[in-house]
Amino acid sequence: MSHIFKGLSAFPITPCNAGGALDTDCLQDLIRRLRGAEVDSIGLLGSTGTYAYLDRDTRHQATKAAAAVKGATPLIVGVGAIRTDQAVTLARDAAAAGADGLLLAPVSYTPLTEDEAYAHFIAVAEATDLPLCIYNNPSTTHFTFSHRLLHRLAVHPQIAAVKMPLPAQVTPAEDLARLRDLLPQDFVIGYSGDWGCGETLLAGADAFFTALGGTLPQTFVNLARMAMAGDKDATAALEARLAPLMQLCKDNGSLRLAYALTDRLGLGEAVLPRPLLPMNDDAMTRLDRWLAETSDLAC
Amino acid sequence: MSHIFKGLSAFPITPCNAGGALDTDCLQDLIRRLRGAEVDSIGLLGSTGTYAYLDRDTRHQATKAAAAVKGATPLIVGVGAIRTDQAVTLARDAAAAGADGLLLAPVSYTPLTEDEAYAHFIAVAEATDLPLCIYNNPSTTHFTFSHRLLHRLAVHPQIAAVKMPLPAQVTPAEDLARLRDLLPQDFVIGYSGDWGCGETLLAGADAFFTALGGTLPQTFVNLARMAMAGDKDATAALEARLAPLMQLCKDNGSLRLAYALTDRLGLGEAVLPRPLLPMNDDAMTRLDRWLAETSDLAC
Repeated sequence: MSHIFKGLSAFPITPCNAGGALDTDCLQDLIRRLRGAEVDSIGLLGSTGTYAYLDRDTRHQATKAAAAVKGATPLIVGVGAIRTDQAVTLARDAAAAGADGLLLAPVSYTPLTEDEAYAHFIAVAEATDLPLCIYNNPSTTHFTFSHRLLHRLAVHPQIAAVKMPLPAQVTPAEDLARLRDLLPQDFVIGYSGDWGCGETLLAGADAFFTALGGTLPQTFVNLARMAMAGDKDATAALEARLAPLMQLCKDNGSLRLAYALTDRLGLGEAVLPRPLLPMNDDAMTRLDRWLAETSDLAC
Repeated sequence: MSHIFKGLSAFPITPCNAGGALDTDCLQDLIRRLRGAEVDSIGLLGSTGTYAYLDRDTRHQATKAAAAVKGATPLIVGVGAIRTDQAVTLARDAAAAGADGLLLAPVSYTPLTEDEAYAHFIAVAEATDLPLCIYNNPSTTHFTFSHRLLHRLAVHPQIAAVKMPLPAQVTPAEDLARLRDLLPQDFVIGYSGDWGCGETLLAGADAFFTALGGTLPQTFVNLARMAMAGDKDATAALEARLAPLMQLCKDNGSLRLAYALTDRLGLGEAVLPRPLLPMNDDAMTRLDRWLAETSDLAC
């Protein structure tokens, strides 16, 4: 059941107005756009989908709306919450609304111990019969998974995949080799951090979880296909053209950039949840320049 | 109006059952205990009060219950939330329920820019006519206030105080001197991190915000009075007797220790919000030993 996490998983924004009300039509258009580009899975309500800012009802509505138009594309739904009872409820909601898999980050306020994170993940994994992907994203959760904890979780029959951050100290190939050695044979190992898409897939990662690919799905599908086929030259050539966009992503965060792209491509009128603010004018000018010079990639 | 933040502010837990339902009677007993010890203010719904884990209704109930029994002791209420609109609503709720001041932490998921944090604080400060204390707690919020941002906020007429973490690179006296130089003259500068209570107050801090003092108010009032009077020897002698407790606090977090103390002192049957778990058996044994040897401080 781990296959649903393999390949390119694209994370759309969850378009809402300033008050936080979901724009269902816009979300369904974004889902159809992902399906049309033939992404391997849809990562609804990830960090890019602002799950942490949305209440239970909005998350349930978004999942139902996406499930209604996703077609055969697997729908992975983020169910992270600060309380275990809330995350369990969200997992059951997602299953009832048509999710094919779950994504769980160790959302925290008081820093979690390893045993606390373990019990939290097991409780959510066992709340439904869907496969679960560990969302390892220290830049937002500030929780660091030890190799020991990853192994403890990965041997659970319903925990099928991990979404890793780009390694800071070693190459993706080295990081992947260590994880392959540690984790069960059919466990899906994927990465996120859009500027590492080519490198991690060339290194043999099973999956890549893309934030910007939620808005530019065709470009990221093309990039992923080149890298998964081992075509280093084509991957490098495409990444060179994406470099200004990747720099904007590093400078502003993929979330703010995804909203700016949504606006500039006319995909909807989504408003970031305050306190988050749009990219500043300088960043928008840089984005507009890239879009003008590279319009064939804005898809 | 900044005087309400001065002196020793004690932060009680918010006693709830496993499902998250408030135990109003227990909370009111804890508030009466703080009042009886003559703390200078009550810090309701701080990190020790698990505000980040409680919904709006529970936070409103807790504030009303505390306000009903607080007497003349100023009631400071934490109104942190991940969305600005939620924090504004919580601030209005707190004012309506009888709070005397507000405490606001920059709760985040997507890391905040300085401008985002600034706009968030101003929106909440202007939502009521209560004075507001900046809750600068990088260990839970992972947001770091620059001196520039602290200054921008401190000049706002309703932002009256800051709760600082213990400085890591300089002494409390050096940190305090820098902040005094930076911030308006009547701005209240306080610290938290219980093992720094004596040192920061001896250095001349205006306030100390204590987590364990929410459960051991008389001991922390005694400590604070000694330090505020400049009595280094008495402060050092009391801190030496508290050292095993402070080490447990560093090792387990003040929140888990406050729940363990609540249990051992028979103050209530409060359950930590999962995923948070009680201290382990080894830590409980250490706590029991300290309580047996130092029973006169367990008050």
